[in-house]
Amino acid sequence: MTNSAHSSDEPCPVARSIGVIGDRWSLLIVRDAFDGIHRFSDFQRSLGVARNILADRLRRLVEAGILVARPTREGGAYQEYVLTEAGKNLFPVVLALRQWGERQLFTPGEPHSELIETKTGKPVQRMVPRNEDGEVLLPDDTKVRKLS
Amino acid sequence: MTNSAHSSDEPCPVARSIGVIGDRWSLLIVRDAFDGIHRFSDFQRSLGVARNILADRLRRLVEAGILVARPTREGGAYQEYVLTEAGKNLFPVVLALRQWGERQLFTPGEPHSELIETKTGKPVQRMVPRNEDGEVLLPDDTKVRKLS
Repeated sequence: MTNSAHSSDEPCPVARSIGVIGDRWSLLIVRDAFDGIHRFSDFQRSLGVARNILADRLRRLVEAGILVARPTREGGAYQEYVLTEAGKNLFPVVLALRQWGERQLFTPGEPHSELIETKTGKPVQRMVPRNEDGEVLLPDDTKVRKLS
Repeated sequence: MTNSAHSSDEPCPVARSIGVIGDRWSLLIVRDAFDGIHRFSDFQRSLGVARNILADRLRRLVEAGILVARPTREGGAYQEYVLTEAGKNLFPVVLALRQWGERQLFTPGEPHSELIETKTGKPVQRMVPRNEDGEVLLPDDTKVRKLS
């Protein structure tokens, strides 16, 4: 996989991820890509972002190996942007953001979009950190082992 | 819980979350707070961020109900910043960022910090989206049901 961040000397994986996608527009573009948006003009319509910023963020996401740019099926001059495997692996990140938002940023009963399993129409389970035995872990149950 | 984002009319929980914490410094501050950093000077030392930016982001995180500012135990003029319940509920977001970084942004064998269960010293399980029956869901198994 193409990956421009390998050269980073940042030993914290959280910080390295944030360095690559910890930006409002990049995260929103990735969300839209999961929702099936692929074209520059459609991202622009969805996000209401300036063309130069959108072009910059798309270029960075391609460089980071999260999106790949390819000609559209119909051919012509247009490109479309599609999640790579590394990009699809951001699914838990986007889902965690969704689930935190649902829990913390909506009043009870306030309507919001929902992520459902297509086959059953049922909501996706809430993701919870667990230990190797499957027991739920709270933040205070864990610690970061830094490099010595 | 204090929550300044309730006034948003954004119906997508992902976007609403990104509006509150989708910023490099905000995410890094939250990561540091999970790691036990509480004081302005310690955040500054950890992040190498300009004082005015750090002050701005801390203020926003307090306004969003993610951090609370309180006097330090020793008293005096200093404040410390501590995660609220809403802030602690960001644990899956930070963990998802960590796990994506570990998987995608390090070469095999490249050393990085690890999140472990304190009690056992064992790594935390990888979080995976699942349906209500516990079956693993890939992005293509799901869709967003928008508000009608």
